[in-house]
Amino acid sequence: MVCQVELICIGNELLIGKTLNTNAHWLSKRITSLGCMVRRTTVVRDEIGEIVTSTREAIARKPDFVITTGGLGPTFDDMTLEGVARALNRKLEMNDEALEMLKKRYAEFARTGRIKDSNLTEYRLKMARLPQDARPIHNPVGTAPGVMIHEDSTTIFVLPGVPQEMEAIFEASLSNLLRNKSDGLLYVERSIQVLGIVESMLAALIDQVMTEYPAIYMKSHPMGSEPEVHIELHLTTSSRNREEAEKEIREATEKIQALISQRGGRTGFV
Amino acid sequence: MVCQVELICIGNELLIGKTLNTNAHWLSKRITSLGCMVRRTTVVRDEIGEIVTSTREAIARKPDFVITTGGLGPTFDDMTLEGVARALNRKLEMNDEALEMLKKRYAEFARTGRIKDSNLTEYRLKMARLPQDARPIHNPVGTAPGVMIHEDSTTIFVLPGVPQEMEAIFEASLSNLLRNKSDGLLYVERSIQVLGIVESMLAALIDQVMTEYPAIYMKSHPMGSEPEVHIELHLTTSSRNREEAEKEIREATEKIQALISQRGGRTGFV
Repeated sequence: MVCQVELICIGNELLIGKTLNTNAHWLSKRITSLGCMVRRTTVVRDEIGEIVTSTREAIARKPDFVITTGGLGPTFDDMTLEGVARALNRKLEMNDEALEMLKKRYAEFARTGRIKDSNLTEYRLKMARLPQDARPIHNPVGTAPGVMIHEDSTTIFVLPGVPQEMEAIFEASLSNLLRNKSDGLLYVERSIQVLGIVESMLAALIDQVMTEYPAIYMKSHPMGSEPEVHIELHLTTSSRNREEAEKEIREATEKIQALISQRGGRTGFV
Repeated sequence: MVCQVELICIGNELLIGKTLNTNAHWLSKRITSLGCMVRRTTVVRDEIGEIVTSTREAIARKPDFVITTGGLGPTFDDMTLEGVARALNRKLEMNDEALEMLKKRYAEFARTGRIKDSNLTEYRLKMARLPQDARPIHNPVGTAPGVMIHEDSTTIFVLPGVPQEMEAIFEASLSNLLRNKSDGLLYVERSIQVLGIVESMLAALIDQVMTEYPAIYMKSHPMGSEPEVHIELHLTTSSRNREEAEKEIREATEKIQALISQRGGRTGFV
């Protein structure tokens, strides 16, 4: 069974079209390349009820991992920890390890002149109040620690929304866990460009080649606008054997190229 | 009650990190500017079960509109119409109006030499099989018609995933419906750049100004990486009176600028 991941992205800015959800894109690409599968991404507003229900729904689907982004900072609308705690029926409590992380970070900021004082105000302390039995994860870039929580067979990671912080925590603390869980599965992909043939004709050729190569998934993506329209054809497979996977992808590519050419189309490499 | 919209984006390419979800971003921005609110975006794979459950879940939350993107073309993995039909317990049936649209489009393609024949193969006919009591929506750019379905108090729009087609259908056929449903609500926003003050200090100032201006929503976005770090502060409000909304935003901006300056920070306009 392939390792399954769900993403929950929290932030009004994503739902008013202010911010493009590059976090979901970056995470999906990294998780896929580590041999795991993103099953669903849910984007919700900075509202406690929305965070609670989306977290409960994700956990009920029993993925191996749930990764949340956003809502982890010091402002009033950063309510992810409270939402996740409520979703799991756990209390928020001061976590000593998280408190140490915050103290160190603000002391460093004060030393380097970025802030005048390193007092742990209520706004700063908020980031150290974690759901019961949660563990903080070192944030190599910013102040708010990431958080790891085990719930039944699912591990929940709560990450900040600032891309540099989210990515740094993922690489330092999550990527190895996901790779280990993927059980050696490798993801291999290839794209070719298809011209001179419409998608409704290509559809039949895809069916034919996928029947012959059942391990290969082929998806057509119409690109550009007329008259420069072309189709990107994306071939993917997952396997424990890279050499074999690459051979299959190569053969399936050659096969569909030949069929496209027979129908008067042309192909090239992306 | 503000008009509520949910988005469901369908496509493996979004969950393997191949494609950035610019459709959700574009739709969120347009829907917000029309005075409606996107409550949630769900991204699922090209799997019939995922489409069925995400559609049912969205409808159960009773938004005014559900808009789906992707999975509307001629290939084997285009299964949105079947998924939506199953979610609503409706049959798929040949829709005469949709069939006419397809005939016209393929005849035009044949006339302009883009395809050799305009035969309605099974792959092409698939795009005219709609859920019972659905209505096709003219696609000004591509082949697959959009689809409109009424279910209880929710209207569902099924749109293609190709951005040019999705946007063209939205502007031609959806934007007026959404604007009418928004009941004259206008969305006003403004951003300022904040330097020389950390987010955990800004948090207290935001609380103070939002208490004084309860109609204004303020959200801080830490940007860039150290030492060039700054915070974008985004102020938004919705109102039936544009002049009044702009005045409130202006006053709240001046207020927080003064407070930031008192704490030794600086502000500028984005």
